[in-house]
Amino acid sequence: MEVYLDNSATTKPNKEVVDMMLKGLIDYYGNPSSLHRKGVEVERLMKSARKQLAKALGASEQEIIFTSGGTESNNTAIMGVVASKNRKGKKIITTKIEHPSVLNVYKNLETNGYEVIYLDVDGFGKINLEQLKRNLSDDTILISIMHVNNEVGTVQPIEEIGKIIKNASNKPIFHVDAIQSFGKIKFTPKKLGADLLSISGHKIHGPKGIGALFIRKNLRVSPILYGGNQETGMRSGTENIPGIFGLGEAARGLYENIDSNISKMWMLKNTFIEHIKNEIKDIKINGYEKNGSAPHIVNISFLGIKGEVLLHSLEQDGIYVSTGSACSSKKSSKSHVLKAMGLKEDEIEGAIRFSFSYHNTKEEIDYAVDKIKKHVKDIRKIMKR
Amino acid sequence: MEVYLDNSATTKPNKEVVDMMLKGLIDYYGNPSSLHRKGVEVERLMKSARKQLAKALGASEQEIIFTSGGTESNNTAIMGVVASKNRKGKKIITTKIEHPSVLNVYKNLETNGYEVIYLDVDGFGKINLEQLKRNLSDDTILISIMHVNNEVGTVQPIEEIGKIIKNASNKPIFHVDAIQSFGKIKFTPKKLGADLLSISGHKIHGPKGIGALFIRKNLRVSPILYGGNQETGMRSGTENIPGIFGLGEAARGLYENIDSNISKMWMLKNTFIEHIKNEIKDIKINGYEKNGSAPHIVNISFLGIKGEVLLHSLEQDGIYVSTGSACSSKKSSKSHVLKAMGLKEDEIEGAIRFSFSYHNTKEEIDYAVDKIKKHVKDIRKIMKR
Repeated sequence: MEVYLDNSATTKPNKEVVDMMLKGLIDYYGNPSSLHRKGVEVERLMKSARKQLAKALGASEQEIIFTSGGTESNNTAIMGVVASKNRKGKKIITTKIEHPSVLNVYKNLETNGYEVIYLDVDGFGKINLEQLKRNLSDDTILISIMHVNNEVGTVQPIEEIGKIIKNASNKPIFHVDAIQSFGKIKFTPKKLGADLLSISGHKIHGPKGIGALFIRKNLRVSPILYGGNQETGMRSGTENIPGIFGLGEAARGLYENIDSNISKMWMLKNTFIEHIKNEIKDIKINGYEKNGSAPHIVNISFLGIKGEVLLHSLEQDGIYVSTGSACSSKKSSKSHVLKAMGLKEDEIEGAIRFSFSYHNTKEEIDYAVDKIKKHVKDIRKIMKR
Repeated sequence: MEVYLDNSATTKPNKEVVDMMLKGLIDYYGNPSSLHRKGVEVERLMKSARKQLAKALGASEQEIIFTSGGTESNNTAIMGVVASKNRKGKKIITTKIEHPSVLNVYKNLETNGYEVIYLDVDGFGKINLEQLKRNLSDDTILISIMHVNNEVGTVQPIEEIGKIIKNASNKPIFHVDAIQSFGKIKFTPKKLGADLLSISGHKIHGPKGIGALFIRKNLRVSPILYGGNQETGMRSGTENIPGIFGLGEAARGLYENIDSNISKMWMLKNTFIEHIKNEIKDIKINGYEKNGSAPHIVNISFLGIKGEVLLHSLEQDGIYVSTGSACSSKKSSKSHVLKAMGLKEDEIEGAIRFSFSYHNTKEEIDYAVDKIKKHVKDIRKIMKR
């Protein structure tokens, strides 16, 4: 049996997504900038993909630009605001538990004279709104906060943050990294109060190499790539047509059944947590279990065990999971998220992230729990010797 | 009959390329950063794609980073050098006929205090090496010159430029935009003397949304995207696996038969030019016909005709061509390349770019010439009334 429980690292593209991509590779291979029919017809289909994504986000087509992925979306949002608003101020507010594609942009900006405030999180991975309010000042140009944390699944109170920002005197720009929440929580950028919002294709059963950035109408930000002025000048470069077709289809598929998809993931997660809690002792669930958490991520510390050892044991049984996030799993450094949540050394060492898709089944969960139980027991036995 | 003669705008992906992409979408969907087998096996195949590209470029794997396409490669090269060398100087040398993904980066740099020298070209689109030498000074940090021009096919004397740069006292960095030359002219970055060299997937029967940048060993440039530090920190973001697999296969296919592919394109181009010259009067071939030119591009002014009118007439017969380049064809502005070559207004207005692939056939060329002849005659007749 193969049980892929690493859906926050990447997902398997849906069949319909692959089919749409084939269209963009075989039948519609033209360059959308070409004046002839082969260009025009590709442009038309690109427009329909943009429409599908806009619909899923409750936005207008003009508010969507396609990027090469979540990292480029996050980079464009942050650097775009900074470049266009740097005369208003040099202060940015974010959190300690953002994705590296946000944090490492700030690291670079700090060496260029920007001041970045990293909000703390509590033991569940949640920020404190009072701390945010205290730090808001007239020279704050940007607030960038992730919707769902990729390692523990904690949901930030984005709507409340949006309201606080809207009431701030100098109207800072609000960017939301929604890469892990899109399709897992129902929202629209408008409802969240987001000016900019990042999306990635390969986290929603779409292809790798494609993402999108929502940019609120009338908001002017600078591009980070210069060239042929595609995407209304916000993202130069010949469009990744197969990727765009695939992302459009992934968004369509996602939102067609969003309620049942979300219910399914909750069912899987609740079943999983219940079984693990009942059958394995000395564990700690990192983050919220239900309210305040996303339906597809659960992070568990198996005390007295090295996460990596459990990961490789499970792999032998066809079960794929993750320590921390894929983006940082190969670095020896400990999870900055779990550290910020105040976890102890052994809790961080024994942490595993399980992330579900609506394609997973209850049978897979049962099988996985069974194997986890076995391997945890075996590893603990060996460790005691 | 369908005759696609717009291969400089984009090419149709080869069947083998699509098959490799399907592998990366269906069988190998893991995240290469994941610690488990599904990540490890993708990483292995990514390595083999990198090897194929490196081989085609006569470079080592460590010298290749994957990007989202030619625009990102050009942007990364230029901005990367500028960010890492700005203490040495603020002067850059380029040409007047570069692609927008180079020129528009400079436009932005000029507003940030950089001095950019745009070398002139002669009537054939070639730069003057003496002008280059005269402009080289100790504060020149970067020279960026395209190998083959995308609108007229003129080849710059890159090897000679490389030697001049190597002998310059302050060792400026040399970037070559090889997007239109890769697979059309045999070269290696080393032979050209290039420190950085840009490649695009969709110009070589690979997919859109993927490109590569050669960065000479031991050369340190700054990245433009920050995040998970993929591609040895030079290009963050989950790798575009289907695109990378496709690019690797495209490079393999290209170089397996490079000599016969190049001969085939020369045969097509020579046949085409000969027929056009014999059968249609009042035309002007822009750029060199043979030596000094690439085998796949020919730009012809049909005097007394609007290029766009001819383009749409040909489209009715299933023949796809281009006025100027795809990247600027939709803008009303006249070709900056033809302008720099000193063409007269009506020569620019009547210009059409025909661009060939080794997949085109002699029959297609004969058919195309026949239709061009007919339409040029008809349009000229109407214009005279």
